[in-house]
Amino acid sequence: MEFPEIDPDLPIGTGATGVRIETDAMGEIEVPADRYWGAQTQRSLLHFAIGDDRMPTALYRAYAIVKKAAALVNAEAGRLDPNLAAAIVHACDEAAAGDLDEEFPLYVWQSGSGTQSNMNVNEVIANRASQLLGGGLGKDRLVHPNDHVNLAQSTNDTFPTAMHVATLLEVRDGTLPQLLALAAAIGDRARRWVDVVKIGRTHLQDATPLTVGQEWSGWEAQLRDAGARLEQSLEAVCELAAGGTAVGTGINAPDGFGEAVAAKLAELTGLPLVTARNKYAAQGSLDGMVAVSAGLRGAAVALMKVANDMRWLSSGPRAGLHELRLPENEPGSSIMPGKVNPTQQEAAVMVALQVIGEDSVVAAAGAQGNFELNTMRPIVIENVLHSARILGDACGQLRVHSVEGIELDRAAIADYVDRSLMLVTALSPHIGYDKAAAIAHKADHEGSTLREAAIALGVAPADFDRIVDPAAMVGDPRRDLGMAP
Amino acid sequence: MEFPEIDPDLPIGTGATGVRIETDAMGEIEVPADRYWGAQTQRSLLHFAIGDDRMPTALYRAYAIVKKAAALVNAEAGRLDPNLAAAIVHACDEAAAGDLDEEFPLYVWQSGSGTQSNMNVNEVIANRASQLLGGGLGKDRLVHPNDHVNLAQSTNDTFPTAMHVATLLEVRDGTLPQLLALAAAIGDRARRWVDVVKIGRTHLQDATPLTVGQEWSGWEAQLRDAGARLEQSLEAVCELAAGGTAVGTGINAPDGFGEAVAAKLAELTGLPLVTARNKYAAQGSLDGMVAVSAGLRGAAVALMKVANDMRWLSSGPRAGLHELRLPENEPGSSIMPGKVNPTQQEAAVMVALQVIGEDSVVAAAGAQGNFELNTMRPIVIENVLHSARILGDACGQLRVHSVEGIELDRAAIADYVDRSLMLVTALSPHIGYDKAAAIAHKADHEGSTLREAAIALGVAPADFDRIVDPAAMVGDPRRDLGMAP
Amino acid sequence: MEFPEIDPDLPIGTGATGVRIETDAMGEIEVPADRYWGAQTQRSLLHFAIGDDRMPTALYRAYAIVKKAAALVNAEAGRLDPNLAAAIVHACDEAAAGDLDEEFPLYVWQSGSGTQSNMNVNEVIANRASQLLGGGLGKDRLVHPNDHVNLAQSTNDTFPTAMHVATLLEVRDGTLPQLLALAAAIGDRARRWVDVVKIGRTHLQDATPLTVGQEWSGWEAQLRDAGARLEQSLEAVCELAAGGTAVGTGINAPDGFGEAVAAKLAELTGLPLVTARNKYAAQGSLDGMVAVSAGLRGAAVALMKVANDMRWLSSGPRAGLHELRLPENEPGSSIMPGKVNPTQQEAAVMVALQVIGEDSVVAAAGAQGNFELNTMRPIVIENVLHSARILGDACGQLRVHSVEGIELDRAAIADYVDRSLMLVTALSPHIGYDKAAAIAHKADHEGSTLREAAIALGVAPADFDRIVDPAAMVGDPRRDLGMAP
Amino acid sequence: MEFPEIDPDLPIGTGATGVRIETDAMGEIEVPADRYWGAQTQRSLLHFAIGDDRMPTALYRAYAIVKKAAALVNAEAGRLDPNLAAAIVHACDEAAAGDLDEEFPLYVWQSGSGTQSNMNVNEVIANRASQLLGGGLGKDRLVHPNDHVNLAQSTNDTFPTAMHVATLLEVRDGTLPQLLALAAAIGDRARRWVDVVKIGRTHLQDATPLTVGQEWSGWEAQLRDAGARLEQSLEAVCELAAGGTAVGTGINAPDGFGEAVAAKLAELTGLPLVTARNKYAAQGSLDGMVAVSAGLRGAAVALMKVANDMRWLSSGPRAGLHELRLPENEPGSSIMPGKVNPTQQEAAVMVALQVIGEDSVVAAAGAQGNFELNTMRPIVIENVLHSARILGDACGQLRVHSVEGIELDRAAIADYVDRSLMLVTALSPHIGYDKAAAIAHKADHEGSTLREAAIALGVAPADFDRIVDPAAMVGDPRRDLGMAP
Repeated sequence: MEFPEIDPDLPIGTGATGVRIETDAMGEIEVPADRYWGAQTQRSLLHFAIGDDRMPTALYRAYAIVKKAAALVNAEAGRLDPNLAAAIVHACDEAAAGDLDEEFPLYVWQSGSGTQSNMNVNEVIANRASQLLGGGLGKDRLVHPNDHVNLAQSTNDTFPTAMHVATLLEVRDGTLPQLLALAAAIGDRARRWVDVVKIGRTHLQDATPLTVGQEWSGWEAQLRDAGARLEQSLEAVCELAAGGTAVGTGINAPDGFGEAVAAKLAELTGLPLVTARNKYAAQGSLDGMVAVSAGLRGAAVALMKVANDMRWLSSGPRAGLHELRLPENEPGSSIMPGKVNPTQQEAAVMVALQVIGEDSVVAAAGAQGNFELNTMRPIVIENVLHSARILGDACGQLRVHSVEGIELDRAAIADYVDRSLMLVTALSPHIGYDKAAAIAHKADHEGSTLREAAIALGVAPADFDRIVDPAAMVGDPRRDLGMAP
Repeated sequence: MEFPEIDPDLPIGTGATGVRIETDAMGEIEVPADRYWGAQTQRSLLHFAIGDDRMPTALYRAYAIVKKAAALVNAEAGRLDPNLAAAIVHACDEAAAGDLDEEFPLYVWQSGSGTQSNMNVNEVIANRASQLLGGGLGKDRLVHPNDHVNLAQSTNDTFPTAMHVATLLEVRDGTLPQLLALAAAIGDRARRWVDVVKIGRTHLQDATPLTVGQEWSGWEAQLRDAGARLEQSLEAVCELAAGGTAVGTGINAPDGFGEAVAAKLAELTGLPLVTARNKYAAQGSLDGMVAVSAGLRGAAVALMKVANDMRWLSSGPRAGLHELRLPENEPGSSIMPGKVNPTQQEAAVMVALQVIGEDSVVAAAGAQGNFELNTMRPIVIENVLHSARILGDACGQLRVHSVEGIELDRAAIADYVDRSLMLVTALSPHIGYDKAAAIAHKADHEGSTLREAAIALGVAPADFDRIVDPAAMVGDPRRDLGMAP
Repeated sequence: MEFPEIDPDLPIGTGATGVRIETDAMGEIEVPADRYWGAQTQRSLLHFAIGDDRMPTALYRAYAIVKKAAALVNAEAGRLDPNLAAAIVHACDEAAAGDLDEEFPLYVWQSGSGTQSNMNVNEVIANRASQLLGGGLGKDRLVHPNDHVNLAQSTNDTFPTAMHVATLLEVRDGTLPQLLALAAAIGDRARRWVDVVKIGRTHLQDATPLTVGQEWSGWEAQLRDAGARLEQSLEAVCELAAGGTAVGTGINAPDGFGEAVAAKLAELTGLPLVTARNKYAAQGSLDGMVAVSAGLRGAAVALMKVANDMRWLSSGPRAGLHELRLPENEPGSSIMPGKVNPTQQEAAVMVALQVIGEDSVVAAAGAQGNFELNTMRPIVIENVLHSARILGDACGQLRVHSVEGIELDRAAIADYVDRSLMLVTALSPHIGYDKAAAIAHKADHEGSTLREAAIALGVAPADFDRIVDPAAMVGDPRRDLGMAP
Repeated sequence: MEFPEIDPDLPIGTGATGVRIETDAMGEIEVPADRYWGAQTQRSLLHFAIGDDRMPTALYRAYAIVKKAAALVNAEAGRLDPNLAAAIVHACDEAAAGDLDEEFPLYVWQSGSGTQSNMNVNEVIANRASQLLGGGLGKDRLVHPNDHVNLAQSTNDTFPTAMHVATLLEVRDGTLPQLLALAAAIGDRARRWVDVVKIGRTHLQDATPLTVGQEWSGWEAQLRDAGARLEQSLEAVCELAAGGTAVGTGINAPDGFGEAVAAKLAELTGLPLVTARNKYAAQGSLDGMVAVSAGLRGAAVALMKVANDMRWLSSGPRAGLHELRLPENEPGSSIMPGKVNPTQQEAAVMVALQVIGEDSVVAAAGAQGNFELNTMRPIVIENVLHSARILGDACGQLRVHSVEGIELDRAAIADYVDRSLMLVTALSPHIGYDKAAAIAHKADHEGSTLREAAIALGVAPADFDRIVDPAAMVGDPRRDLGMAP
């Protein structure tokens, strides 16, 4: 069959009202006439009305790129008429750009392989491509969802492929930049405050001093390391199942199809994509997704620590630690006037807990595969994309609305250093651990200063003043931060 | 101050375009003029754009009932002008009915106390009530969000109160009926198939027989027991924090306010609500919500087992167990024509895994309280309401689209019974465990029937035929199911 | 066959060295001659050497009670020779008392039904009972592990029964008393400090005041409520599977056996045990155990909050909140002399996290059942008994080594109240929320007292002094605690 | 002070009975005279009797290597007398070899920094070293736990260092080799059965064929990939905190100490250890451990899928899939004679679930850090080492006791292929998806063969026979497995 050339300027829209009849292997069904989707999409809408959770838009946009790559490969190999391929590619470009987002209404809770979302894509692309070719929709369409759009493909290899592409794009373009921007903003402040000596705290108890810059450099390092591990985890999803079709053997796909599609997808996305070395693992498992999810969780764990530290260090203002002064973004209380709360940090902690919990869903689902397919795919892509999204956004909001506006309460910081008993640690190499401990206990129980207690127990005042110097107890903060001395 | 009577027929809508100025303790801010919300809502929208997760509608509807109850109690005690109270109550009724749903746009990820959602409610009710009283919006409004709508209240006591009410309504009216309807549908089939003898399976391996009805009665019992435990768990959220205000002491609320609000809410909702015996626990913890979440998880665990059994028993049709024939709702594969998959069961399993994971978020958040407040409230209500919703919906879809259409493959069922080796168990009391084991091993290794192996090892044919009768090995299925013999 | 009378004074021990031959359905195997166990136990030791995790002793002791009950029921019904039954009962009593603990060496990681542990019990009881009857061990024994000790039983009904009995005993006798003793110790201090006014904290930020007694009463209430819910959760395991045998139908068990065994077990343990209403659910699921695990988790969640509050309130001594002074049990640091850390609270938090995590294992395992059996039983009983044990112990250690020795730092407590800005809340009903907020902001930004800021913004000094009285802002602490005024 | 030379042949043992007095900063305490531990160990035993969980032996052995490295570095820099250093090193060698295992009795649930375990090591090494030098124990000892053994160290930097070393050794020497040996055993069978055509299954439903070798190659790939990711995750713990001392600044440690200790440890262990780039992150977080835990979890997820597939494929023998015949290791049932259960696979699944759950504990604990220290260290090392251990052991047992003995049931395998309807997929490219679907449905509903239905619907018999050839539908199994054609 030959196809006419497409009209690339044909606007999106069916121009119809009411319903039209669409058919699939199970027969006819009515579909809203203003929609591009077909019979299988409509059936799914009727059978899976569970909650309000819709399969994520980001997945469909990635799926459209996958379909485009397949069409291009099929056309290049002469398996698909060039005009037909052009129509499919054009429709895929529209979908990838988000122009067809409204055509993908399906619930997350559906077939565990994502078959219905694959068919949703096939149907929408087929109808839109038919229209571009001058054909009709439904039974009048020139393009077949399975025989053309899905050519040489199965849900079982393309859905995992789309999952991987969507995940890579979301993390590369959303999560990672936001995570690293937060780390950078923290690092900026670490360098700004590199020399501000403050009391350290271990077990929540007063410890030896460090500088604010050193403390913040630890947060920066946690976030950067988490980012590096997250990036590394992406390797696990750069392998694509495409080419494996139904069970991994590649039935109904030509030799080399998987390699060609992966290469085309790499070209289209700029991602280092390759065909999976073992298609049975790629389709039977979700192990790569579990690995990325662990990468997201790692970042959440780090974020939670950092956000909690900020919450506690800004506690007060009068009855807390209050070393930090957070920006006041909103009234804090509906009953207590003038209250300022660490709401950005609270939001970040909640996001972190949610990501950690969603990761546990991913792991549990990842372990539920059977034989040639893990049919927990929708739940996994939903949770991973959601976690990636809220984690990135939370980092962004925290940075812009809090971190970049944090100020130090230098008086409080200095006061804690002055009063701390743990400066006694510096005496330990000189007088021994046991005697130093006695001095600290004496000061604590008598409410005296460390200096008073030390002298009372025989330390020479001059020795005390020379040895117990907080600024000399913090090591070399500038070296720690990689700054010029 | 005296207030005019309200115009109860005043339609919803501000009739304005562009923006208006709203103010709060932090100053002025522009708000869309067609919206009822005020300054604090607007600030929150700007500061917490994290993902697409909005605080659940069900929470706001419940919150409106709480505000109504407070207004009524305040009016009855003379603390609130009757006309003002009538305006607030009217606006609350509109919100509770869902007519103001669009006015509550805030993100889940916000202040950990839910302050901004409380203020969102206060602002919307205040503006709408002002309008009903003939007043303006924003600086022209006659009703103050804090001084009137929030009178004698704090976020810290009303947000947990609204959480409890929303949870009770969702579970009572949504989750539980759906769960029990699924159990009932299963029970119907248990009774229908009470006498159909089938092979039992333990460790996935052939075991002694039981009837289809007995097997299904186990599923029914699991779901009913889970429902009973879920219902019991609701007791934990029938205690309300209202009256505790800022930290549990009830500052700025009159004596007896908590009791009165709880009684009013009980009257308005038909729920057995009481004021919390200890407000410090009620506000400092989320323990009641954790308990309900565990109840939801229990139901998810049971649902997962039932759905998995159905999946496996319908596996095949030629290379699986295929004792059950599921309704064909949609084509199963984009590449394998004619394939029928257990998609409802897969959706149910995914929902179960999601609920189990969301419950872990709730527990983790529940453990993060500090001092007089647990500031992980939004994440907890989001996850609990979401779990309750998808669990109920999944039960409903599974029932309607699968369970009610399941048929038996009686030929397969009979065939398994005929061929099973584990009928040897009935011989055990007669010839001893060790000899019975030898018979089973012989049959297995030789591929013979049990009868052949038994006779070869010395069992009299007549004895075998008398003792090894599958129908006699299933006990009393009708008694098990509470049916007349 | 007739059996002689037992010699009840025969000491435990085989008096043999080297190995003896034991046999089972798979043939002969060498067993250490000084052990009572038999062939199946020995096989399991060889096949499941995974980690060092042994099936918990508490399970075996409970299993012995189950075997005793079965033997008594069998004897009373004439199915078991009285002397033989007496021998079995005597051996069971020894096992239940812990005298045979060393005879149960099997790993947790074994058959998912616990078959090997059931056979371990059957073998040990059989050999010991044979010895008591004057018989030999192994091939010379007078008592058969399956035909006598396991008479009318299967692993599939007795293992769940033993799980339930073990769980009930551990929680009733260990966890609950320790949890409630901790609550009581906290309650004692709540009443002792009922009138000590302190600053409240919400969002970690200064809030309105309450008393130390009110705060501690919240902790007590959390723990008591958690205890009540834990106790309630035990109902879920008071139903016993015994009588269902292989798949729930009761094959090879006489009518009424389940009821009789449950009644006997109730008599032997004092627990409100009944036979399960539906044996298919009782054997195919672990839902009751999941419910108890949720009860344990609820207590862990509460404990974590309480322990964390104590940690933070004792932080310092100079650079933290330090309202509480914890007992010094040990030196806190290997490098910082004189450091005192909240180690009991840290241990409690870790235990809480472990219990929460083990509960997630229980839920995941509980969802993995298939058909007539959930074969995740060993992992579930291991985690539940472990959680119950460490939770109880942690409550005990925390109480004895910390709570009972906690003292207040009254100077610090008073100082925070004096300096707090949130006392402004009391002004709010008099001057309105917005003006009160302005006062608080002014004081915060200028570092002034609240009184100074209030007067500067027009509040009359006398009004301020009358209205802003911390002691008047805490409501009625004695009423909150149920104390005489 | 000068020290004598040690007597390297002095046997381990104090030769004393009763108790001796040990002292620490808190005073005197009685210690069993036959033990090397000191006052702080003894105090910990008294204060933390929680469950039976003892800090893992593998941690102490690694800790001894850390102490040895520190002593060597200190000696080389002249900070420690050579003879004293030799004594410490000798004692450390004994501890690292396991000869002092009994001297480390502390509970997991203790100080959250692990201080007490560090002091336990310091005390035991000090007393043993003193003995080697001819000195006494306790107050008579020549070696000080803090001033000598702990010289230039803190718990806060050495405990994390020991955690990392212990984890690396356990995973490198235990988990990974076992995991890879299992993969290899599976791969051997994949190659052996590369050409055996079997039916594929997706959604548990019959799908297109593949070979046994292809299926097993998927398992092998999952395990190998999981191993590679686990190995990669180890990078996260190759950075060591040593040198950071109390809060990361390195107080009381000389410049370059961290670098020197890391280099020495690398030399002693053969591990690629380096000093942490940021000590504040290294001590304030547990992020590296969380990453390794995720690696272990990834392997558990893969193992669970593989073990479950084996369980299901061996189900039967008469009423299940039964494509595989597992070795019979033990009698399967206490009531059903001759039953063989997939117990190794069940154990593996349980281990996988436990590892997944313990990983969730690690993540939760990892997120609980505050300021300069994460005080959830004991729970993290306990769970990670336990998971690493049981995961490796389970792989080993599964391999030896099951995988290496698995046989195919070739008759069953062939039968499923013959009867499958999904071979229709091969017709799809020739006659279109819709017509192929009609054929499959017809055959399913009529119970006919696919061939019969195809011919009835117009496919030429010769075409059917040519196109529908299972062996031609599996692609190129030998290429998939990297085998010569």
